[in-house]
Amino acid sequence: MKNHLLTLALAAVLTTELVTAQTNELADDWKPSSLNQPGQQYPQVNSQRYARFRIVAPHAQSVRVSLGGRERGGLALAKGEDGDWTGVTERALDEGFHYYHLTVDGGSFNDPGVLNFYGSTRWESGIEIPAHDQDFYALKDVPHGRVQLVLFPSKLTNSVIARTAYVYTPPDYDKDTTKRYPVLYLQHGWGENEYAWWNQGRANLIMDNLISEGKCQPCLVVMTYGLTNEGPGPGGRRPGAAGGTNTLSGATNAPAAGGGPGGRGGGNPFSGAAAVFEKVLVGELIPYIDANFRTKSDQPNRAMAGLSMGGMETKFITLKNLDKFSHIGLFSGGVINTNDVNNTPGFREKVKVVFASCGSKENPGSIKANHEALNSIGLKNTAYVSPDTAHEFQTWRRSLYQFAPLLFRD
Amino acid sequence: MKNHLLTLALAAVLTTELVTAQTNELADDWKPSSLNQPGQQYPQVNSQRYARFRIVAPHAQSVRVSLGGRERGGLALAKGEDGDWTGVTERALDEGFHYYHLTVDGGSFNDPGVLNFYGSTRWESGIEIPAHDQDFYALKDVPHGRVQLVLFPSKLTNSVIARTAYVYTPPDYDKDTTKRYPVLYLQHGWGENEYAWWNQGRANLIMDNLISEGKCQPCLVVMTYGLTNEGPGPGGRRPGAAGGTNTLSGATNAPAAGGGPGGRGGGNPFSGAAAVFEKVLVGELIPYIDANFRTKSDQPNRAMAGLSMGGMETKFITLKNLDKFSHIGLFSGGVINTNDVNNTPGFREKVKVVFASCGSKENPGSIKANHEALNSIGLKNTAYVSPDTAHEFQTWRRSLYQFAPLLFRD
Repeated sequence: MKNHLLTLALAAVLTTELVTAQTNELADDWKPSSLNQPGQQYPQVNSQRYARFRIVAPHAQSVRVSLGGRERGGLALAKGEDGDWTGVTERALDEGFHYYHLTVDGGSFNDPGVLNFYGSTRWESGIEIPAHDQDFYALKDVPHGRVQLVLFPSKLTNSVIARTAYVYTPPDYDKDTTKRYPVLYLQHGWGENEYAWWNQGRANLIMDNLISEGKCQPCLVVMTYGLTNEGPGPGGRRPGAAGGTNTLSGATNAPAAGGGPGGRGGGNPFSGAAAVFEKVLVGELIPYIDANFRTKSDQPNRAMAGLSMGGMETKFITLKNLDKFSHIGLFSGGVINTNDVNNTPGFREKVKVVFASCGSKENPGSIKANHEALNSIGLKNTAYVSPDTAHEFQTWRRSLYQFAPLLFRD
Repeated sequence: MKNHLLTLALAAVLTTELVTAQTNELADDWKPSSLNQPGQQYPQVNSQRYARFRIVAPHAQSVRVSLGGRERGGLALAKGEDGDWTGVTERALDEGFHYYHLTVDGGSFNDPGVLNFYGSTRWESGIEIPAHDQDFYALKDVPHGRVQLVLFPSKLTNSVIARTAYVYTPPDYDKDTTKRYPVLYLQHGWGENEYAWWNQGRANLIMDNLISEGKCQPCLVVMTYGLTNEGPGPGGRRPGAAGGTNTLSGATNAPAAGGGPGGRGGGNPFSGAAAVFEKVLVGELIPYIDANFRTKSDQPNRAMAGLSMGGMETKFITLKNLDKFSHIGLFSGGVINTNDVNNTPGFREKVKVVFASCGSKENPGSIKANHEALNSIGLKNTAYVSPDTAHEFQTWRRSLYQFAPLLFRD
């Protein structure tokens, strides 16, 4: 018992010293994260990209944050004299959006101070680290498009009545009701859902800003759920059952056991999953969109892109359907390689844009090497590496910002 | 210390007995709540409308659920041999939707098993008790309208660039692009936001179902944030900043100190708050909607309704703007009384529908008495009392279902 107490006391001293040492070097310009719930002061972020947390749980034994100290099981918060648990990340976080959660006395909970974002097959807490280039996804005083919740009939999979898609329509879509638009199908990653691209990714604001500057052809962006191979679990897929938002999101099935492909899991037969999704996308969603929106429905006016697992789905589906897609974007989700080009009949004639990207903290070497390899066989293509980011949404926001201006230029 | 232990032991025995007695009478047909996150088995609901919970927090000292035992500070869960915390509500819950949260070791957290819904000025946990009449808000194989996220410019309040509205457009809105539609402006209650009516309320599915059965004139339903009098707090109102969903919702300010009117708070000068909202609604939102959607923009084709505080806003705004509104619905939010009719110039000529409702567990007497009083002065009006419900969303779903068929019949 004495030893135990001594250990505790020593730990307390060490913790205090560490925190003090760290704090002395930290800029004292903390601001609430932009993703906090209304009126919530914590978490906060400073100009050095550190985050600090404050959690109220006066009788808890232990509170941890799954950020900025991962190798030790997350950042352990310390209980202050006021009973609140506080702590600062051990290092600067990358620019952009990060998922996280709390572990309170052994249970997983979200930070009650912040908004939730669907990732890892559940609604998680989110924090935003201001980025040097955040202007391109900021809300500005420019014309805004809309994000439209669509319930499209789906009979091919499970026994759902309808599936959910979100459709970005550009500014002025409803001003001239004779004009028709090309379409980009844009997929989320494993464990995410149809909210990811506009909620975490700010795809609608990225498009608004690009269009307002004349950098991008106005087009529709269609975002749907890509894990359609999974059966409806308890409280499972209920698209539109409550009409929307969180309900619709929770309306997403649990991942298949063992996780899916896409960097966060692995082991499932990917092609099987992608084949089911191909049926839904090509057989149900595309016809629905072309019938219910004013689209240009020919192959030159349809693009597909995706992040991580969504990139793999994009590659799988576009290469099998080059009569339907002319522009291909893979964000942290593999590459179109020379074999793909050589072994896919009609590739050179039919495909107008080939784009691959990743974060500089992922595998930029392979992206660049593939870019050179495609160049060497005379295939025009674009490779993009996002500076100082990893397998996270800042990489994908930037990827969309680079990719969208290339679309529908012919 | 001995006394303390004895008390604990006695409490344990009593708790066990209570739980046993209760369990013996409970139907063992538990099903996961339809609002659970994907793959989550708990909470569950049985056919007698009891709910049971299971929370993982192996090292916690205390876990409570703010449902079904309110008078004792919420339902105290008991720790099982497996380390999970479980419990069953002490009584049947009312049919429909309920907000709740957990208290874990003194801190407020959401149930990680379920989806979140914005109420009480924060994202809370939600549970759905199947209702005998749930068919009218179920997702069916009928044509579906869309729910469109709109960012409308707003300069009148605070210093935001744009505000958020969700606009329901009926099925076929995009089929015949020459047709124009009447509009219902539909407001949430205090502590809720622009998600409430379609997320918790299922307004879009209620309208889809009514329209498919020919019971209701196709119209637009516009839902926006009604607490516009509040300044942007930290991480405050950021409409469209991340483009949507949770972010946009969190995009709602903290309530003014002391809470607002509308049954959950009180004390603030209501007319001041409503006057600010009137400016936004009448001065900014209505012109935006009429300019950007195919509306019938004349007075006979514009309705307003709201629940709780939204009902009070509806009364305040419509009576001051009878040149703009012809149909008035107050759901658990007061009544249009004989004085209102007599003291508002032109009321009898301009107002086509007067509707008031509440749950049978609220104040049905006053609704009925006012109905008779209006009848006695020869003013046609409708009163509706929702059976066996209180100041909660099942009352308001049913109110919309009763109100919408009355609209735009002239």
